Parts: sequence; C-alpha cells; structure tokens
Amino acid sequence: MDAAEFRKRGKEMVDYIADYLEKIDKRQVFPDVEPGYLRPLIPDCAPQDPESFEDVFKDIEKIIMPGVTHWHSPYFFAYFPAASSFPALLADMLCGGIGCVGFSWAASPACTELETVMLDWLGKMIHLPEDFLAGKDGQGGGVIQGSASEATLISLLAARTKSIRRVQSEKPELTEADIMGRLVAYASDQAHSSVERAALIGGVTIKSVPSDDTFSVCGSALKKVLDEDKASGLIPFFFCATLGTTPCCSFDKLLELGPICNKENIWMHIDAAYAGSAFICPEFRHLLNGVEFADSFNFNPHKWLLVNFDCSAMWVKKRSDLTGAFKLEPLYLQHHYQESGDANREQCNKQENAVTLELRFTLQRLDLLRKKIYCSFAFLKEKYKHWQIPLGRRFRSLKLWFVLRMYGVTGLQEHIRKHVTLSHQFEHLVLQDERFEICAEVVLGLVCFRLKGSNELNKALLKSINEAKKIHLVPCHLREKFVLRFAICARTVESTHIRFAWQHISQLATELLKTWQQNYHQQ
Amino acid sequence: MDAAEFRKRGKEMVDYIADYLEKIDKRQVFPDVEPGYLRPLIPDCAPQDPESFEDVFKDIEKIIMPGVTHWHSPYFFAYFPAASSFPALLADMLCGGIGCVGFSWAASPACTELETVMLDWLGKMIHLPEDFLAGKDGQGGGVIQGSASEATLISLLAARTKSIRRVQSEKPELTEADIMGRLVAYASDQAHSSVERAALIGGVTIKSVPSDDTFSVCGSALKKVLDEDKASGLIPFFFCATLGTTPCCSFDKLLELGPICNKENIWMHIDAAYAGSAFICPEFRHLLNGVEFADSFNFNPHKWLLVNFDCSAMWVKKRSDLTGAFKLEPLYLQHHYQESGDANREQCNKQENAVTLELRFTLQRLDLLRKKIYCSFAFLKEKYKHWQIPLGRRFRSLKLWFVLRMYGVTGLQEHIRKHVTLSHQFEHLVLQDERFEICAEVVLGLVCFRLKGSNELNKALLKSINEAKKIHLVPCHLREKFVLRFAICARTVESTHIRFAWQHISQLATELLKTWQQNYHQQ
Repeated sequence: MDAAEFRKRGKEMVDYIADYLEKIDKRQVFPDVEPGYLRPLIPDCAPQDPESFEDVFKDIEKIIMPGVTHWHSPYFFAYFPAASSFPALLADMLCGGIGCVGFSWAASPACTELETVMLDWLGKMIHLPEDFLAGKDGQGGGVIQGSASEATLISLLAARTKSIRRVQSEKPELTEADIMGRLVAYASDQAHSSVERAALIGGVTIKSVPSDDTFSVCGSALKKVLDEDKASGLIPFFFCATLGTTPCCSFDKLLELGPICNKENIWMHIDAAYAGSAFICPEFRHLLNGVEFADSFNFNPHKWLLVNFDCSAMWVKKRSDLTGAFKLEPLYLQHHYQESGDANREQCNKQENAVTLELRFTLQRLDLLRKKIYCSFAFLKEKYKHWQIPLGRRFRSLKLWFVLRMYGVTGLQEHIRKHVTLSHQFEHLVLQDERFEICAEVVLGLVCFRLKGSNELNKALLKSINEAKKIHLVPCHLREKFVLRFAICARTVESTHIRFAWQHISQLATELLKTWQQNYHQQ
Repeated sequence: MDAAEFRKRGKEMVDYIADYLEKIDKRQVFPDVEPGYLRPLIPDCAPQDPESFEDVFKDIEKIIMPGVTHWHSPYFFAYFPAASSFPALLADMLCGGIGCVGFSWAASPACTELETVMLDWLGKMIHLPEDFLAGKDGQGGGVIQGSASEATLISLLAARTKSIRRVQSEKPELTEADIMGRLVAYASDQAHSSVERAALIGGVTIKSVPSDDTFSVCGSALKKVLDEDKASGLIPFFFCATLGTTPCCSFDKLLELGPICNKENIWMHIDAAYAGSAFICPEFRHLLNGVEFADSFNFNPHKWLLVNFDCSAMWVKKRSDLTGAFKLEPLYLQHHYQESGDANREQCNKQENAVTLELRFTLQRLDLLRKKIYCSFAFLKEKYKHWQIPLGRRFRSLKLWFVLRMYGVTGLQEHIRKHVTLSHQFEHLVLQDERFEICAEVVLGLVCFRLKGSNELNKALLKSINEAKKIHLVPCHLREKFVLRFAICARTVESTHIRFAWQHISQLATELLKTWQQNYHQQ
C-alpha cells in the first residue's frame, strides 16, 4: 500500500469509525459469540501473497465486530469507563504517523518535552502541590505510564531501594537479603490486586489493612498493624492508599494516613486510577486533600478524562528516588557520574543536564540515565560499554495535548459532572424501589446496588441482565455481599439511557422474584 | 468535536500523515532544537475554554515537528528500525475507534481470540516448534507484549517461581528467602540492559557470561560459570540467550547452550528482539536452530516486520509456568481451582476453559486467572472477594492481522531481504576504503564500522556526522573499541540513500583526518 492508497483507505476508515461510534447504540452491547468462535472463521496461517484492503476491510464486520464488547455503547455500564474522544483519536493517528520511539530526549525531543509540560498542565488542573511539578527546575514531575499497575510497581520498587539504603546506613550489619525479608508493604483490603502483584514481583511481603464500614482505611487501622509489625521486628516501608476503590469507589483517609506514613518513613503512594479525573472539578478536589503527604500519585486520564487508552499519569515529589531505584550501590552510581578525563567534559556535563530533563523515571528509561547515557552529540562517557536500544514509548502526550486544548478545562469538567449527575439519577431510581438497596455511598460515577436478599438472588439477577444483553454490568463483593456495580461509562450516555437501564433491571427483577418465590414455595 | 467534524478532521489528518511520510526525505533527519525548547512555546497551563482544531493543527508544524527526530526518514540509520506501514496505521485507527480494553475474554472476545490466532500465524511463519503454538488445545502459545523487556521480566519471574518450588520440594528446610538469595540468572556480556534490570526488579543476582571473539556466548563459557557457581552453593535458574545483540547483531550459540540449560533445570529465554523478524526468510531461519530447547522466545514485529509500535511477540512452551508464576503456594492455588459446591459447577468449569483460552499470561491478566475469575455469564466463584478492574490492553492484534494479510509472507520477506542487501552494500563500500574497518560480521541489517585508529578519532567522526545532520547514526562499544553502527531502518530506504550516506561519511572522514593530522603534527 502506497501513500496514495493510504489517503483513500484512511478516509474510508475515518468514515467507518465515525459510523461505528455514531450508531453504536444500535449494536448489541455484549456479543453473542461463544469462546473459540474466531479461529474457524479465518485461515490456519498467514497468506503467502498480499490480500487487498477490501478483503481485509469486509472481514471487520464479518469476523471482528461479532466478537466485540462495545465499551462505548451508552448501554455499557461495566467495569469503569474507558475514555474515548475524537480529539484523542486524531492525536493517536498523528502519533502513529510520526512513529518515533521516544525513549530519550535525542530519540525525539518533542516527545519527551511535550510530556513533561502536559503532566504539569494536568497536575495544575487538579491542584497538585507544587512539589509534584517539574516546572523549570523542580525536583518532582510527572510521566505517562501505561497503567496504574505500572505506577504502583515503580513506586514500590523505588520505596524498596530507599528503605534498604536507609536501614543499611542505620544497621550496617544487616544484609540486603535480611532487610528484604523484613520489609512490609500495606494496602486497603479494598485495594486493587495490582498492589499485591507489585509486592510479589518485588519479592516483599504485603498485608491488607482492614477498611472501615465505609470501605475506607482510617489512620487507627493502619497504626494498629504497623505497631504490631514493628513489635515483631518487621520494617514497614510502603503504603498504597486508594482514592476511588475498584469495588465501590471508596476513599482512604489521606489526612489521617499521610502523617503516620511520613513519621514512620513509609512511602505513601496514592492510586486514584478512576477517581483522579474528577479532581479537576473544585467540588471534588477535597477528596484529594492529604496528597501533600504522599511521595507519589497516579490517576488514569484513559479512564475518565476522554484520553484514549493508554495514558496513566504518575507524579513523584523526588525524581531522584526513582532514578536511583534500580541500583543498590550508590558507589557504583557515583563511579559513573563522577568519571572525568574527558576532554569535552564541560560540554558533556551540559549534555547531562539536558539528559536529566529527558529522563523522567519511566522504568524503561532508568537504564539510560543510570549507566549508559547517550549524549546526543556523541560524547559517550568512558566505560559505558554498550550503546542502549530503546525500551520504546509512543508519543502519548499528543493525546493529552489535543484533548486538553479541544475540550478546555470547562469541557472536561462538564463531562465529569454529567457522569456524576447520571449516577445520582440512577441512585435515586434505586432508592425509590423498596426491593433494592444501595450498598456504598455514591460519590462519583459508580452505583453499587442489589436486591435485598441473598447473594444467590443477586447472582441470578445479574445473570438475567447479562443474558438479555440489552445493557452490560459486572458485579463485585462488598464484605460478604454480592453486589451489582452500575458504572456510568460512555461519553455519549444520557439520562434516557439511565432510565431505560433502570426500567429494564426493574422488570427483570420482577420476573426473577416471581420465579424465585415460586421455587421457594415449591421447596 | 462531534462525529461530523471528526469525519472532516480525520481526513485532513490522513492527508497530513500521507504528506509527512511522502516528503519525509526533505526534512532534516535530526532536529536543531536545544533541550528545553518546547516549554516557552506553549502556555503554562491548559486553556479554560476549548480551542479549535485549526489552532491545534497549526501548532503541529510550529511546535512539534521542529523537535521530532524523523525515524522514518531514509537518512535515519540509528538504533534499530521502528516499524511503520500504512496497513498498520489503518489497523491502529480501527483499534482506537473500537476502543475496547481487552483484559479478559468477556471484555472483548475478538480482541483476545484474534491475538491467539495471530501469534500462531506468526509462530508458523518463523517455523517455531509446535510446542510454542496454542493451536486448539496446545499447552503453549503466544501473546503480544509491549516490549522485549517485559517479555524478559515475565519469563524471569516465571523461572524464579518454578525454581523456588522445585528447590523447596527437594530441600524443604530452605525458606523462600534462602533460595532467592542463591538464585542466579545469566546473560551474555553483550545482552541488553533490560535483562539486568529484570533481575534487579525480581531481586535475584545476575551474572554476565563472557562472549567469544565473535561476540557470541558458546556452551563452554556458560558451563564454566555454572560449574563455579554451583560449587559455591548458588542455584543457576535462568539464562537469557540473545539472537541479534544490540551492539553488533551477534548470535548466541543456542545449539550448545540449550542442552546445558535443559540438563541443569535452567529456564532458557531467547531474546531476538530485532533479528526475529528475519526468521520468516528460509535463508535466515537456521539462526533460530536450537529454539526447541528454550522455554520462552520473543521478538519484536514493531522493529522489523512493518507493524507499528508496540507489538512484541512472546511465546512459551508451557502457559502454566507463567499463569502460576506469581503465587508461591501451590496449595493456595489448588484451593481456588478445586472449589466445589457450586450448583452450576459444570457450567462454571466450561467457563473456566473459556477463560483459560483468554488468559494468556500477560502480567496484567494473571490475577484474573489466579484469584478472581469473572465468568461472563455471572458465575462468580465463591470466595473470590473482589471483582477486578482491567489492567488494560489495546486491540494490538489488529495491526498484525492487517500487515500479515496486506503484505503477505512474500511481501514481508521482500522487505527483510531488501534491508539485508542494503547493509551488505554499505559493508562493501566500507571494505573498499582502506581507512575503515568492519568490526563484526554483517549478518542482517546492521553494519558496525570505524576508522582504523583511536576511539577519539571515531568519536570525532561520529560528532561531525551527527552535527551535519544529513544522516543520523549512533555508536556502540565493542570490547574497548568505540564503533559506529549503521542500521538499515526506514521502510523506504533505497540503494541511493546508502550511497549518499557513504559518500557523506567518507568526505567527513577526509576532512577530519586532515585536521586530525595537522593537530597531531602541531602537538
């Protein structure tokens, strides 16, 4: 395919996407296919000879679409939203067209620099404390990660290194393995499983802190486990607070937790994957109070800020905590940074400052900073044995730039507020029906609800909802209760869709209760 | 922006991208900007009110393009190629338009199933042993990762768990921490730094195995370090072999290394990030001989197979090694899989099989399998406390599907062969000039060369090349030598560009040698 054909096919694709999104409400939100449906529909191996675009294009409706769960349907209320907007789609097209791999400043200066500035824009929109911004010469700053899980892992690893160094300096008789064996990370019993996984990867123990009856962790609960663990010789080093938990969108009490963490030398990371976008609205910003105590903070514009996946924004107060995270011997580091004897040393230092700018603590880019800096004007530091191939990154900040500018702060606030209003509308409908109960406070765009009665009854209700396939929901457990989650997801969802969804659920509940009571009487 | 405006703007963007790529040879390959260039060009914070598409669009040429390193310019010979093709761009547009987050089968069946089948297609194209394919009921299979580094990390973590379990069953008196402290991973002294980083993240020791004078690791070198380490009580558990190293595209000797790893219970992972694409050509497939001994294998279609970033293909022989990797207590696992008492158990099992299909060992998806499977028909397993939010994935297999079909195997072979021919053309030009030397065997699309003489001389040559900005190269170190790497990169690079590049380098060398000799005489 040459550029001329791309012009033609690209425009056809633009129309296809516009058609798809304009008429997505006409498609069944959840597909009918059974597992394994696709393999029999396509050949066993790749074709030897090229096929035409038409051949491939017609298979989209024939093979792909029948197996797609339509996340942007206004009848999709499952999981949390996946952001999508036209400005973001345009930016992603441009990102693909430029096709640079921005692993370092030199590999594409615009890619690195726009990211730094966009994360400052975004940080200012949610009024992050200045410590977290890069500015012209700040110690903190933001970076785009692929997911909140990556952000959690990176902060846990940075905390691990920092703690090992601190403990080693206090008790030089302990080996790294001794210390690792005593480190403990903490998170709410409502926290996302990625926190546990981060600890497993990092080889440290993790413990759940019990949440209270609003599903929030409070200071006293954390203090209790810390005291117990310290008494038995363990070393608490990391706490992941959640703002907007996955099951029910509850909020840990940062203002109580933060001072404890600071006092105890515990790294506090805040995971606000879903809820973070709401903090651009002044009326929700109070939920972030206490962030000033945190070491790192993360939320996903790819969930609720109209920036297509993937765009997870992470900030830290001290970049150096991260850039030093993967090497435990500070001497080794110093060795590399303090090398001299290069005739162009001054220029090289100038380059290093430039490189500092570019190396904004993604896991991928740490190596370049640490050991093998490639100076763009060919001053390779002595003893840097290998030149390093990128651990690539796409030009993801373009999406933020397009979305923030073409919506403006007010446009994005409007989007958040519409979703919150719709969730309260749904909550109100549920509350008017005595058969149902609300299971957790509705703060943002998620409503947790259930039929008063057994878990089996509610499982049956969810089954009938998802088998009817007019809307799509997923469940969660809150303590011992099986609960239905109703998340406001689509950019285009409106009040009519909410009313339709509720009428549908209500009717299925009526039918279910009829059968259920009959069965009950038969037993 | 509504769908109607997206139709208009999307088409303008298609034309902009086509123009950019058609005339990319007219742009200076490496930008003129200095670090920090971008911040003064844009406002300090996001606009309150929406800006128009025109406002944003005109800033692309004004603000972004002056800071772009043009990876797809035919004058770009740096790093390794970043793949780009029109079919892949079209597929990525569709991926964005659908905008599903494919973290599980139910979240979008097509997304999961197409990936399985595409990885089988790709595996067959390079004649991977059948063990690595998913087929209808194989134990192996492939998955798309974001980068080769992720693949290395995941295989190392899987190997770590497997080894800990094995050693614990043999020597129950050892704790997990005892065993972790003795585990050793290995890779060539030419291996990518991501292998070292994977070990740092995983908390295990890693050692370099010396490569021979062709920069390859041979069996005897590995055996020597293994014998020494075993004698001192260490536990070798992981070897990362490289096919096509970053500095000079050398190849570790799989046929010698594989049997040693198998005998010693060492997980062998093969990183063929760049070189792997070449194995679709029968004349290069012999370089992969020995893959039959490996546990996992990885290469990056986003480097050399015309599939835009990110698309890193990873295969394993035993999916269960990975799906079990993040939990060290097999009993805990069994507990969850062996739960009974569910009225719908049979149907639930059926769902679990479906889920097995979908859960193809990405780091992200392991949790769902391990603890909290969400059955699409609402059979939540008892005791799975929380419903889990996705750790998302884009619909990346669409790119593979479009590219493999629209190029066909023959079209892709043609692309690889053109690049290899061009690298030999460049090698030939270098060899005809007695001032220069070739520093490593040219096997695929990379030529390592230098002026005969000091490292300082070669640094000066690279500096003059990159300051002229007519072409772009990066260096490497091979042992003590500073070497220039000339990598064939762009899809559109032709023989004329190679000749131009050589004449340019040759002329700069002449000028440099003149000054250099003058300075030498003056000293």
